[in-house]
Amino acid sequence: MFPKNVWYVAAASREIADGQVIARTICDLPLALFRNLKGGPAALLDRCPHRLYPLSQGVVTESGLRCGYHGLEFDAGGRCTHIPSQNEIPPNACVDAYPVREVHGLIWIWPGDPALAEDTPLPAFETGEGYLAGLDFSCLDESEEWGVAGPHLIEIDANFMLAVDNLLDLTHVAFIHAKTFDNAGILGSERIVKKTDGDQLTDFFRFKNAMSAPLRAAYMLDPQIPLYDSFLETYWHPPGTMILVHGAVPEGRDRETDGVIVMGINAITPATRDTCHYFWSQSVYRNRNDGAVRDAWETATRAAFEEDEVVLRTQQQNLDRFGTADLQDDISLMLKSDKAITQVRRIVSRLVAQEMLRGEVAAAHGTPR
Amino acid sequence: MFPKNVWYVAAASREIADGQVIARTICDLPLALFRNLKGGPAALLDRCPHRLYPLSQGVVTESGLRCGYHGLEFDAGGRCTHIPSQNEIPPNACVDAYPVREVHGLIWIWPGDPALAEDTPLPAFETGEGYLAGLDFSCLDESEEWGVAGPHLIEIDANFMLAVDNLLDLTHVAFIHAKTFDNAGILGSERIVKKTDGDQLTDFFRFKNAMSAPLRAAYMLDPQIPLYDSFLETYWHPPGTMILVHGAVPEGRDRETDGVIVMGINAITPATRDTCHYFWSQSVYRNRNDGAVRDAWETATRAAFEEDEVVLRTQQQNLDRFGTADLQDDISLMLKSDKAITQVRRIVSRLVAQEMLRGEVAAAHGTPR
Amino acid sequence: MFPKNVWYVAAASREIADGQVIARTICDLPLALFRNLKGGPAALLDRCPHRLYPLSQGVVTESGLRCGYHGLEFDAGGRCTHIPSQNEIPPNACVDAYPVREVHGLIWIWPGDPALAEDTPLPAFETGEGYLAGLDFSCLDESEEWGVAGPHLIEIDANFMLAVDNLLDLTHVAFIHAKTFDNAGILGSERIVKKTDGDQLTDFFRFKNAMSAPLRAAYMLDPQIPLYDSFLETYWHPPGTMILVHGAVPEGRDRETDGVIVMGINAITPATRDTCHYFWSQSVYRNRNDGAVRDAWETATRAAFEEDEVVLRTQQQNLDRFGTADLQDDISLMLKSDKAITQVRRIVSRLVAQEMLRGEVAAAHGTPR
Repeated sequence: MFPKNVWYVAAASREIADGQVIARTICDLPLALFRNLKGGPAALLDRCPHRLYPLSQGVVTESGLRCGYHGLEFDAGGRCTHIPSQNEIPPNACVDAYPVREVHGLIWIWPGDPALAEDTPLPAFETGEGYLAGLDFSCLDESEEWGVAGPHLIEIDANFMLAVDNLLDLTHVAFIHAKTFDNAGILGSERIVKKTDGDQLTDFFRFKNAMSAPLRAAYMLDPQIPLYDSFLETYWHPPGTMILVHGAVPEGRDRETDGVIVMGINAITPATRDTCHYFWSQSVYRNRNDGAVRDAWETATRAAFEEDEVVLRTQQQNLDRFGTADLQDDISLMLKSDKAITQVRRIVSRLVAQEMLRGEVAAAHGTPR
Repeated sequence: MFPKNVWYVAAASREIADGQVIARTICDLPLALFRNLKGGPAALLDRCPHRLYPLSQGVVTESGLRCGYHGLEFDAGGRCTHIPSQNEIPPNACVDAYPVREVHGLIWIWPGDPALAEDTPLPAFETGEGYLAGLDFSCLDESEEWGVAGPHLIEIDANFMLAVDNLLDLTHVAFIHAKTFDNAGILGSERIVKKTDGDQLTDFFRFKNAMSAPLRAAYMLDPQIPLYDSFLETYWHPPGTMILVHGAVPEGRDRETDGVIVMGINAITPATRDTCHYFWSQSVYRNRNDGAVRDAWETATRAAFEEDEVVLRTQQQNLDRFGTADLQDDISLMLKSDKAITQVRRIVSRLVAQEMLRGEVAAAHGTPR
Repeated sequence: MFPKNVWYVAAASREIADGQVIARTICDLPLALFRNLKGGPAALLDRCPHRLYPLSQGVVTESGLRCGYHGLEFDAGGRCTHIPSQNEIPPNACVDAYPVREVHGLIWIWPGDPALAEDTPLPAFETGEGYLAGLDFSCLDESEEWGVAGPHLIEIDANFMLAVDNLLDLTHVAFIHAKTFDNAGILGSERIVKKTDGDQLTDFFRFKNAMSAPLRAAYMLDPQIPLYDSFLETYWHPPGTMILVHGAVPEGRDRETDGVIVMGINAITPATRDTCHYFWSQSVYRNRNDGAVRDAWETATRAAFEEDEVVLRTQQQNLDRFGTADLQDDISLMLKSDKAITQVRRIVSRLVAQEMLRGEVAAAHGTPR
């Protein structure tokens, strides 16, 4: 079960060139994602209404997407515009289309009721001064202010909430990423979890840190400075969009002037019950060391996320072999470190329940979809 | 669901040498197909009644087929003839046997009620003069009249009716075989679909054709002649036997004296719900160009059928991921080009329904099987 | 369905070094089998109670096993001893632990009710004089009396009872091992099947044997002696522990003084419904020919058991494709050679039924587990 009346990242813009089509499953919906010849993105259900052949096997034409089997063509709205073997277009010759938006190098999709999409803004966070203005995803635009690695995509063979959980309990860093980050200090960190407006949540770790060799290398820290103020600050927007602001500043100094600040986008999109798409990026504030920090962090993050991918897949397999439908409060042992996870799962469960209720009401009134 | 009280092609004769056994599933029945030492074909359920080991793992002996596990032997009728560890043969020591017939290089099987097989002839078509006399499958016998490629077998990971559909809407040639045949002219062709006696159906395409380079090469046409009369004529016998007569003759000339005529056997046999066996051959009338047309067409057909195999597998996978049990009138958009498909699916559905009804009546009267 | 209130072999001792952990499924229970730093074996359910991550992915520490995801530690009894992110250990922070015992190079496990384990001895057989004293598994200890090959493990993709059946109808040797043993004489052997105390059973084959070339090579027999007394004597303990005493002695001579005697341990442990672990060894009495017979038999047995593995997997696949849940008296044809199998299956079915009944009674009285 996933919330569907929300915006999810469907693809990185650069994944789909003009006139290209790719197949991607989102919230159990197999989709054909394509760009028309002028670059406009579109999302159709990946099933020609004629013989149910996948439209993602077709080609992009002037009028939209042409099915590869018998040549029917559909526009971005899902209306059939051409049937090679006859002149009339039957009224039922159409396919479901889904709202999409593209901004800052990400294509977002609304897999639920299209009527609700228009008035719903893309995920946004409370922003502030300086680098925090980038919490609106503009940190993904390469500029003098940001050195950007990504967005990249990792396919994860696990339910999307396991991936969300993973990011909302960073104490795992001490064990899973013991070699890649060697950041055991996080276990003794001060931690503040807060629910904010709009069902959002923040989860901050802040601690004094001698900084391990891998961290010093990836942040390119000054070897002369023995102690740093370390910070990992997660901003979560339901159900799977997170920005993780992290970095280090010499002890007692000002973060914005003297610190290394990295903003990591983490957008997790459900594919099926037990798979998800994980879009990630790392943007280095003021592109320190002329892109060198960006490149070092990209390499370090990729290595760590490959570790996470194995963990999440292994965890999902274990849920499956024990026949556990989902990780819920009543099944797993909840620790103090699970405070953010507990709140977030409660919010997401409520969103799903609201949609189910809304669906039942709509069905009772005969509203389509 | 497949009709079972019909003859299907089980194997090409040359697939099973004397004294050999192969495993093949037909209509959800796992079978051991074998030849005795004198060459007689036989089909037994692929399951020794003793410890349910597959008989196809055994060896052919004087008396029939010997199980590889504990050595029980069975004759072509499924009766146990030898048990190594005891002298008496218990009356229940037998395995289901299925009627088989062999003619023109094909072994046919009757997977339904054996009592009905004897009086049912193998599939045959209304035949006529000249090359059309070959509609009785004698075109599979290499001779002065026929240059024969095949029969070959392609395993298709799709329901057998998807493969039948594919052959009954040749407009797909313009898209799926755009490179291999380059025959877009078929989209503007005159087309005549007729139901004939015995639940058979004919589906004829005839059109003027400049003939593409691949077609000219495969038919070995005269480069001096600019325009041809092109024909693709399908004869369908329920549920999955088709002969496709195709070729080209210089515009306005006589087909039989001046044309290239090829007769393609297409026999599609259900394996499981979503797999089938596709037997095909190409027989060139009067073996033109001393076998060169036969060889060229064999190569071209193999390439095209590999394209079809991908399409059918992809289509079946799409049905599966959308949870669609089967392609039926009420699910898919029916176009004018689907006239033959619609009629054929109606006939096959009726055959299945009749068998179910017959099975229920038999069960009510206690008739075995 | 398997009996669970019994001792099964979980692992060969040498599979798990001090401080190591492995994953193994036994009776549908995914387990983490490990040794503490001092060598003591333990078995925990392979699922951390926190986020259900497999404990077998963790590491062995001073206090037991540490989960690889967030660092919780558990002792051999399944009690949590450490949580990195907090000081208090919640009372529900525990994981199921299973009784284990280790003797003669085998680690045994009790997958059922732990309360019943303590008073139940490991499988033992009626023993006698001389080499038969080794029926208590001491034949697995390399010594002057025994030359030991194994214990080895083969993973079998078949229900454990198919593997038991296979050993309780050795007439299959004439067919499956026709090349490896070439011992068709077994088909004409005298055979005595007896039920003994404690639901045990013995199944003896004894016959005059010219001994084939492979048997002569593996036993290293005297080429001058034309005829031998051959014996294969199986001792079965429910549900899957067998000792097969086999060998040859020159016709009419004394087995213990002049014969080659080999004692094969066969311990078959259910993994899942259709997989099992097969532990085997071959111990040569008085280690004849300074270990050469041991080595020759190890090689011959390995080759033969690889043949069995294929047979059992193939048989299970055939049961599955025919939708047969299990081989039972009413499904398969029972022959005289199945006398041992029939009795053994009856005993095992009764054990399962008794456990089910006991489970229902316990549930009605609210007894845990």
